[in-house]
Amino acid sequence: MSHGYESGRLNLPFTGICTFARAPYQPDWSSLQADAAILGAPFDAGTQWRAGARFGPRGVREASTLFSFGHAGAYDHEDDVTYLDGVRLVDMGDADIVHTDTVTSHANIRRGVEAALAAGALPVTIGGDHSINIPCIEAYEGRAPFHVLQIDAHLDFVDERHGVTRGHGNPMRRAAEKPWVTGLTQLGIRNVSSTAREGYEDARARGSDILSVRQARKLDPEATAARLPEGVPIYITIDIDAFCPSIAPGTGTPSHGGFLYYEVLEILQNAVKSHPVVGIDLVEVAPDYDPTGSTSILAAQLLMNLLGFVFHAGLPRP
Amino acid sequence: MSHGYESGRLNLPFTGICTFARAPYQPDWSSLQADAAILGAPFDAGTQWRAGARFGPRGVREASTLFSFGHAGAYDHEDDVTYLDGVRLVDMGDADIVHTDTVTSHANIRRGVEAALAAGALPVTIGGDHSINIPCIEAYEGRAPFHVLQIDAHLDFVDERHGVTRGHGNPMRRAAEKPWVTGLTQLGIRNVSSTAREGYEDARARGSDILSVRQARKLDPEATAARLPEGVPIYITIDIDAFCPSIAPGTGTPSHGGFLYYEVLEILQNAVKSHPVVGIDLVEVAPDYDPTGSTSILAAQLLMNLLGFVFHAGLPRP
Amino acid sequence: MSHGYESGRLNLPFTGICTFARAPYQPDWSSLQADAAILGAPFDAGTQWRAGARFGPRGVREASTLFSFGHAGAYDHEDDVTYLDGVRLVDMGDADIVHTDTVTSHANIRRGVEAALAAGALPVTIGGDHSINIPCIEAYEGRAPFHVLQIDAHLDFVDERHGVTRGHGNPMRRAAEKPWVTGLTQLGIRNVSSTAREGYEDARARGSDILSVRQARKLDPEATAARLPEGVPIYITIDIDAFCPSIAPGTGTPSHGGFLYYEVLEILQNAVKSHPVVGIDLVEVAPDYDPTGSTSILAAQLLMNLLGFVFHAGLPRP
Amino acid sequence: MSHGYESGRLNLPFTGICTFARAPYQPDWSSLQADAAILGAPFDAGTQWRAGARFGPRGVREASTLFSFGHAGAYDHEDDVTYLDGVRLVDMGDADIVHTDTVTSHANIRRGVEAALAAGALPVTIGGDHSINIPCIEAYEGRAPFHVLQIDAHLDFVDERHGVTRGHGNPMRRAAEKPWVTGLTQLGIRNVSSTAREGYEDARARGSDILSVRQARKLDPEATAARLPEGVPIYITIDIDAFCPSIAPGTGTPSHGGFLYYEVLEILQNAVKSHPVVGIDLVEVAPDYDPTGSTSILAAQLLMNLLGFVFHAGLPRP
Amino acid sequence: MSHGYESGRLNLPFTGICTFARAPYQPDWSSLQADAAILGAPFDAGTQWRAGARFGPRGVREASTLFSFGHAGAYDHEDDVTYLDGVRLVDMGDADIVHTDTVTSHANIRRGVEAALAAGALPVTIGGDHSINIPCIEAYEGRAPFHVLQIDAHLDFVDERHGVTRGHGNPMRRAAEKPWVTGLTQLGIRNVSSTAREGYEDARARGSDILSVRQARKLDPEATAARLPEGVPIYITIDIDAFCPSIAPGTGTPSHGGFLYYEVLEILQNAVKSHPVVGIDLVEVAPDYDPTGSTSILAAQLLMNLLGFVFHAGLPRP
Amino acid sequence: MSHGYESGRLNLPFTGICTFARAPYQPDWSSLQADAAILGAPFDAGTQWRAGARFGPRGVREASTLFSFGHAGAYDHEDDVTYLDGVRLVDMGDADIVHTDTVTSHANIRRGVEAALAAGALPVTIGGDHSINIPCIEAYEGRAPFHVLQIDAHLDFVDERHGVTRGHGNPMRRAAEKPWVTGLTQLGIRNVSSTAREGYEDARARGSDILSVRQARKLDPEATAARLPEGVPIYITIDIDAFCPSIAPGTGTPSHGGFLYYEVLEILQNAVKSHPVVGIDLVEVAPDYDPTGSTSILAAQLLMNLLGFVFHAGLPRP
Repeated sequence: MSHGYESGRLNLPFTGICTFARAPYQPDWSSLQADAAILGAPFDAGTQWRAGARFGPRGVREASTLFSFGHAGAYDHEDDVTYLDGVRLVDMGDADIVHTDTVTSHANIRRGVEAALAAGALPVTIGGDHSINIPCIEAYEGRAPFHVLQIDAHLDFVDERHGVTRGHGNPMRRAAEKPWVTGLTQLGIRNVSSTAREGYEDARARGSDILSVRQARKLDPEATAARLPEGVPIYITIDIDAFCPSIAPGTGTPSHGGFLYYEVLEILQNAVKSHPVVGIDLVEVAPDYDPTGSTSILAAQLLMNLLGFVFHAGLPRP
Repeated sequence: MSHGYESGRLNLPFTGICTFARAPYQPDWSSLQADAAILGAPFDAGTQWRAGARFGPRGVREASTLFSFGHAGAYDHEDDVTYLDGVRLVDMGDADIVHTDTVTSHANIRRGVEAALAAGALPVTIGGDHSINIPCIEAYEGRAPFHVLQIDAHLDFVDERHGVTRGHGNPMRRAAEKPWVTGLTQLGIRNVSSTAREGYEDARARGSDILSVRQARKLDPEATAARLPEGVPIYITIDIDAFCPSIAPGTGTPSHGGFLYYEVLEILQNAVKSHPVVGIDLVEVAPDYDPTGSTSILAAQLLMNLLGFVFHAGLPRP
Repeated sequence: MSHGYESGRLNLPFTGICTFARAPYQPDWSSLQADAAILGAPFDAGTQWRAGARFGPRGVREASTLFSFGHAGAYDHEDDVTYLDGVRLVDMGDADIVHTDTVTSHANIRRGVEAALAAGALPVTIGGDHSINIPCIEAYEGRAPFHVLQIDAHLDFVDERHGVTRGHGNPMRRAAEKPWVTGLTQLGIRNVSSTAREGYEDARARGSDILSVRQARKLDPEATAARLPEGVPIYITIDIDAFCPSIAPGTGTPSHGGFLYYEVLEILQNAVKSHPVVGIDLVEVAPDYDPTGSTSILAAQLLMNLLGFVFHAGLPRP
Repeated sequence: MSHGYESGRLNLPFTGICTFARAPYQPDWSSLQADAAILGAPFDAGTQWRAGARFGPRGVREASTLFSFGHAGAYDHEDDVTYLDGVRLVDMGDADIVHTDTVTSHANIRRGVEAALAAGALPVTIGGDHSINIPCIEAYEGRAPFHVLQIDAHLDFVDERHGVTRGHGNPMRRAAEKPWVTGLTQLGIRNVSSTAREGYEDARARGSDILSVRQARKLDPEATAARLPEGVPIYITIDIDAFCPSIAPGTGTPSHGGFLYYEVLEILQNAVKSHPVVGIDLVEVAPDYDPTGSTSILAAQLLMNLLGFVFHAGLPRP
Repeated sequence: MSHGYESGRLNLPFTGICTFARAPYQPDWSSLQADAAILGAPFDAGTQWRAGARFGPRGVREASTLFSFGHAGAYDHEDDVTYLDGVRLVDMGDADIVHTDTVTSHANIRRGVEAALAAGALPVTIGGDHSINIPCIEAYEGRAPFHVLQIDAHLDFVDERHGVTRGHGNPMRRAAEKPWVTGLTQLGIRNVSSTAREGYEDARARGSDILSVRQARKLDPEATAARLPEGVPIYITIDIDAFCPSIAPGTGTPSHGGFLYYEVLEILQNAVKSHPVVGIDLVEVAPDYDPTGSTSILAAQLLMNLLGFVFHAGLPRP
Repeated sequence: MSHGYESGRLNLPFTGICTFARAPYQPDWSSLQADAAILGAPFDAGTQWRAGARFGPRGVREASTLFSFGHAGAYDHEDDVTYLDGVRLVDMGDADIVHTDTVTSHANIRRGVEAALAAGALPVTIGGDHSINIPCIEAYEGRAPFHVLQIDAHLDFVDERHGVTRGHGNPMRRAAEKPWVTGLTQLGIRNVSSTAREGYEDARARGSDILSVRQARKLDPEATAARLPEGVPIYITIDIDAFCPSIAPGTGTPSHGGFLYYEVLEILQNAVKSHPVVGIDLVEVAPDYDPTGSTSILAAQLLMNLLGFVFHAGLPRP
C-alpha cells in the first residue's frame, strides 16, 4: 500500500486548490464517476437572522484540506481502521444560484442532486441555509422511500407563514409531505425557535420522533440511533447549529445547549452501521461569523468521518 | 439656548436605546410628525457577493449615537454653524422583511417611504443592499419628478439577467425607466462590475452622466456638483462602496480606488445648496464585515452631516 | 390564541429597534407598567482587566431579538410550556453614566432599580461590570430582606484595597454588609482571583455558602438549588464569567473551567420554583471581545428562560 | 560602527520581552539614566464611547519591536540619516492605576512624569485615554513654561459637565488654565464632538490656534508648523484619532476625515527642528478595536520617528 | 459577442471552486496551454515578523472570483476597453512546500515557473513571502536578460545575516547578483526596515534606482514609469506592503505611508505599455491578518487589471 | 505574610511589562537564580497548516498577568492551598530564532534549556510549534533518564518524510530515539493527523502508551495518571491542541473532540504528586487565531496551576 508521502508531492494542507478533500473537480455533471459526489449549495436567502451560509461550501472545502494531506485513507487509531481508502470522491462544484430567486436557485440545487443520483454516487450537499434541504429531498422524487435523520437545534417544521414555504424554517415540514419520506427522527431540538407549539404538534402527528439534546444525552448514542426504524434507508441532514456554539459559532442562528462533537459522531456512526444512507446534507455553516475557523473545521471533520463510516459499513443503497 | 449637558442626563454615546441619532421612535407610521423620517430597510437578498447589509440599519443607528450626545444641534467649527438645531428627526423602525420573497419585502419598504412622504417628512432609508432603492424610487409614483444623484462604485444598470430585475445590480436601470425620474448623475463608478459594456451604453443613451472617482477628482467637488441639472430636485442614493475600502470595508462588494470622506461630503454639501432634496437612501453597510466599526461610523457621520446641510440650506421641496 | 405570524408584521429577528425582547421602551420611569422592567447599567470603570461591559446592555438587547420573533410567548417542547405568554416586559433604557465618577453613576443605577420596584415590576438590570450590583442591592434599602444567589467565577468579596470599595471585586462584600441581605450562596467560584484567602474566610464567617463548579457539578442542579435557605426570597446576580469561556469569551476576566449552559439553567429553574425572586442582574458581558456574538446570545437566552421560569412559577414577591 | 547583526543575537521582531523599542526596563524610577523615558499610563475611565486604551501601552510596546531589530539606530534613506544612534531610551513600565479612582490614578501618572523630568530624561507617556494628559501637564508645575502642540480630532476643551473635569474631553481646557502653559496649537480638529460652540469660543479667547485637517492641509506641513510661536519649547500631545480611521481604527472615538501618516510626520519633523520638546504623550490607542494591528504600528512608527527627529535636532531643553 | 450571462450559469462570485479568476485548473504542468499561468507559492518561513502569507494564494484566488462573474473580459469604462477578452489563463495550483526546508521549497517553486516559461505562458506567481521571488528569478537562468521593477515598502537588499540568504529580506540582493538581471527599479521604499545603510549603498552601487513613496508621488505615474530603462523587458515583483496599511493591512510587516491604489495601478499601466513583461509575482498577502478581506481583494483587483494591461499592450516577450 | 495589596502598587493585571507571571526578566542566562525558568521559543516554521505560534510566548506572557496581580501566591479555595508562595520564577526571554534556518533556531532553544538546567531551575519552555520539543529534549543529553508525558491531539510520531525530521509532526519520534527517554505516555490522541498507521505501530513498538480523549475520559484522571510508570521522573509536553477547540481555537491544527480544562488539570495534578518533573513545555498557542484570547488564557492558567502543583508536591528532581 503506497501513499503520497513516499513519492510525488508532500501536499501540506495549506497548499493547493480547495476542492472537498482534494477530490477531483468535475463540472460536467453528466460525467460523474464516483462513490460520493460533493455539491455546494451556496444559497442563504432563506435565513431569518444572520446570512453568510453562502460561503459555507468554500469554508468547508478549505477546512477539509486539513484532513486530506497525502494519505491513502485516514487511519483512526481508536477504531484501528483506515477509512476512505479506495473510496472515490468527486467535487461537483456549486449549484448555480440566482439572487432574489429562491425557486430557480432551489431548482438548480435539485438538478445537482439528481445528477449525483443518476451517476450512482452518494449525494453530499453542503449548504447554504437549511432551505436547501428542500430541493435535496425533492431530487429523490420517484426513487425508493427513506427516513430522514435530522440533527438540528430547530424543528424547522413551519408550514407557511406570510407566504413563505421555502425558507430555512420550513424544510422538515416540506420533507414530511413527500410520499417518499417515510418519517423523521429529529435530534437536538431545543429552546425557542421559529417553530411554535403548533409545529411540534403537527410534526408529532406526522410521526416525528423529537428528542432534545438533553433527552438524547440521557440515552447513549447507541440507544439514540436505535430509535430509527430498523434497517430503513436514511437521508441525513445536519444543521451545524445542532452543535454547541462553543464549537460552532459560525452559523446563522446559534442556540446554546447544543451537542458536543462525539455525541453526534457516535450517533451517526451507530446509525450508519445498520441503515443504508441515501443522501447527506450539511447546512448553515457561515464561516464569516467564526474568525477562528472552528465551525468549518467541525463540518469538514464530521463529514470526513461520516463518509468514512458510511463506506466502511458498505451497506447497499436501495 | 439650553442643551442636555446643563440639566437632565449626560447621555454618553454608549448609553441608551439605539434609534437613529437618538431620535424618537415612532412605529405608528400614520402619526409621523417630523422634518426627516429614518426608515430601516434590512433586505440583503439582492447581493451577489457578501450579504450582511440586513444589519446595516442596526449598525448605522448604533454608530449614530456617537454623534448625538446631548447637543442641541451639532456645532461645526469649520463652517461656524450649529447644524440640525431644531430639526425634528423621527425613527420609523424597519420595514417588514419576508425572507425568500423579494417582491413583498420591497413592497413593505415602499410603504414606509410613502408614509414618510405622506407625512411631509424627508424620507431617509438605510439599507439593506442597493436593491432597496427600487421600492424607494417607486414610492414617488405620482409625485413631482426629480433627478437621481448616485454615489457608488458600480453602475447598477443591469436590465435583466437570468430573470433578475430587482437585485442590487438593477436599481439604476429601474430608476431610469420611471417617468418621474428625469435623469441620473452617477459618481464614483469604477473598475469591473456586474454591469457590462452594454449597460454603460444603455445608461448613456438614457442620459446618464457617469464619472469615475478619478474623473470626479480632477474636477473639484464644486464642479462635480455643478454637473447636476441646475436647480432640479434630487434624490440622493449613496452606496457605501463608493468609498475607498480603507474607510468602508464593511460592505458587500468592496472596490479599491474609491472616494475619501471629504470628497463625497463636499460634493453633497455643494449639491444640496442649490438642489432641493426629495429623498435619501444609504445602502450596503454590512457591519459584520468591519470589526472596527469604521463603515457604520462613516455612514452615520455622513448622514448626520448631509441632513445638517439639507436643512441648513432650507430649500423648499416640490 | 393569536400571534404575530398570523397578521401584521413577520418581524424577523434582524429587523427593528433593539429593546430587550422587543419590549416597549419607557424612558419615563414614573410611568412603568410592567411585570418586569429591564434596565441597562453600562458602567465598566470597575474592571481590573478588560473593559467593554459598557456595551453589554446593547449587546444583550440585540441578541434578545433572536428569541422574540412574533411569538405570543415562547414554546419549550421539553417542558411543554409556553413561557412569557401574557407577561408584560418593559425596557427602561439605561441609567445615566458619568465617566470618571463611580459614585454618581452608581447612584443613577440605584435610582433606576428603585423606580422599577416602586412600579411593582421585577427589576432586571443588565451590566456593565459587577460593581453595578452594588447600587442594585442598595436600591432595596427599607424593603423586605432577601438572600443573594450569585453565579460567578469570582468571589468578589474584597472589602477595600487601595481605597477601592466599589470596584467589580467588591460587590458581594458590599452586599453582605447590608442588613437586608440575609446571606449569600456563591456558585461557580474557582481558580485564583482578586479575592485572597482572607476574603474567603471573611465570606464564610458571614455565612456564605461557597461552591466551585466542580463541587456544584458533583451535586446535581436540584441539590445545588436545595442549598438555598428554604423558601426565602432571593436576588439573583449572574456574572457571565461563571460560564466556561467556550460559550462566554466576551467578558472582562474569563476563567476556564466554568459552567455549561444547562448546568446554570437548571440550577436557576429549580431555585425559582420555590423561592420568590425579588431582583435579577446579569453582568460582565463585553460584546466587543466576542466577535461571534455567543456571549450576548447566551446572556439573552438565559435571561429569557429565567424570566419565563420566574413568571411561570408565579410566586408572590414580598 | 557595529550592530547586533554582526554578533550576538539576530533578535527578529517577534522575539523577546516587549519593552518600548526593546529599551531596558527600569522599574526603579529613582535610578533612571536616559535621554528619553517611556511611561505607560493605562487609564481609560475617562472615555465617552469605547474604552480599551488601557491596553494602549502594551499594544504600542509590542508594535515598537517591529522597528527595533538589531540596528544601531534606524537608517532613513530619504533623509540619509541614521536616527536614534546613541540615544539612550529606557522603559519605566506603567504608572499604577486604581480602578474607580481617577484622582489617584492621575496622581500616579504625574509621579512618573516627574521622575523622568527629575532624571533629566524626556518624558514620553503612552496612554490610556486623553485624560492622562492632565497629570502629564501637571507634572511640569514649577518648571519653565511651554506651548502645547495638540494633534487631535477633538478640541477636548470642555471645562466641566455633570461635575466631570478630568475626563478625556477636558485635557486641553485643563492645560490652558496652567500658568506654565503659554498657549495651544490645536491641529486636526473636525466634525462634531463633545466640545460645543462655547468650548471653541473659550479656547480661542484663551489664545488657541485651531486648524482643521482641511485647513492644515491647505497650508503645507512647513507652514502649519510655522504657526507655532517661534522657538518656544513645546509639549506634544498626540491623540491617535487625529488620524484617518483608515489607518487608526483602533481608538475610542474615531472620526472620519483625519490626517494621513506623512501629514502629521512632516508637521512634527518641521516643528521639532526649531522648537525644543519638553515632553510627549500619545493617547487613545485601543488595540482591541483593531484586529489588524495597524493602529499600534502607526503609533509606534510615529513615536520612533518623532524621537529620532527630536534627538537629531539636538535642541537644548529649558 | 456572447457571454455567460446570456446562457448557461449566472456564476455569482460567491459560487464555485476558487481557481484564480475561475480559470481552468491544470495540475499537469507539462500540459499547460495558456497566455498566462498562475502559480501559488505558499511559503512563508522567510518572514521576520508575522507569518500567514502561506494562505496568500488561497486568499487571492477567492477574492479574484469577485472580478470574474460571467463576463467575456472585463469592461473598463474609463479606458473604454474590454480587457482580458480572449486571453487564456490557467491556474497551475501550488508549488509543493516542504516545512522546515527552505531550499527544497524554493526549488519546487522554481520548477513551476520554469514549466510556465517552457509552455510559453507568462508566469504569475502568488506568494508566499517575498523570499519566493528568489526561485522565481532563478527560473529565468539561461533566458534573455531583463530588468526588475519592484513595488515594495522595503529594499530587501540584505546580502547575508546570521547565515540567512534566502529570507524575505534578501530577494533583491539575490536578483541583483544574477547575470540575467540587468538592473532594478525599486519603488515605494520607506522608513526603517531590515536593510541597514550598507544595503542601500550596495544597491545603489549595483545600479538600483530607489524611490520612496513621496519621491514617486512628486513625479507623476508616467514620469515614474519613465525611469525604467527604455523598452527593456521587465519582471514585476509586487510586495503588497508597498501599499498603505489602510488598504493592505493583511501582510507580514505593514509600513505606514504606503502607496494608494491608483498610484501603483497607473505606474504599472504606464510601464507595461512600452516594456514587455516576462514575469510577475505578488507576495506577502497574509489574509488571516485582514478580517475584512481588503488586502486579498486589492491583490486580486491589481493582478486582474495588470494582466489586462499587459495583454492589451500586446508587446512580444523576448 | 504581606502582599502587594497592602503597600506599594495595586498592579492591576492590565498594567506593566509582560514577563511571565510578572516574574523578573533575566536575559543573562549565566546568572539565573530561580526555582523555575521560563523560556520563550517562538519558532513556527515546523507547522503544516497555520503558522502563528511564534507569537505564543508573547500571548501566554500577557495572559499570565491576569493571574498575577499582587498576590503572594495564589489561593485556591477548593484545595485550600496558597500555591507558588515563595517559589522563585524568572523569565529568560526568548531563544534567538533565525528565519529559514531550523537547525540553528533549534540549537538556540537547546542552549536556553541547558542554561536553565545548569542553574538548577526547572525549565518551562513556551512554544512555538511542537518541533521546539526536539531541542528541549536534546538539552537533557547526559542527564538522568526520564519518561515523557505528552498531552496532545496528534501522535507526532513521523520519522521522516520528504526529508523532514524536525517539523512539528516529528518530536515524539525524535524523543523516543533518545537513550535518556525511557518511554512515552501519549494522551488525547484522536482523529486523523499527519501520523499514518505506521507511526502508531512504531510508537507502540517502542513502548508508547497511547490513549485517546475518550479512552482517558473512561478512566478518571487519577487512573489515567496512574498509567505512568511508578515514581519515574517525567518531562511534560503539552500541545494546546489537545484541548477542545471550544477553549483553544488559537492553534495551528485544531481537532474537535479534545480535552476540557479540568480533565487535563486533574491528570497533571495527579501525575506530579508522585512523579518528579524535570521539564515542561507548552506549545502551539497561536494567539492571532483567537480574537477572544481564550487560548492564551488557557495556556497561562494551566501553566500557573501546574507550576503550583509541582512546587507544592516538592519532589526532588534527579
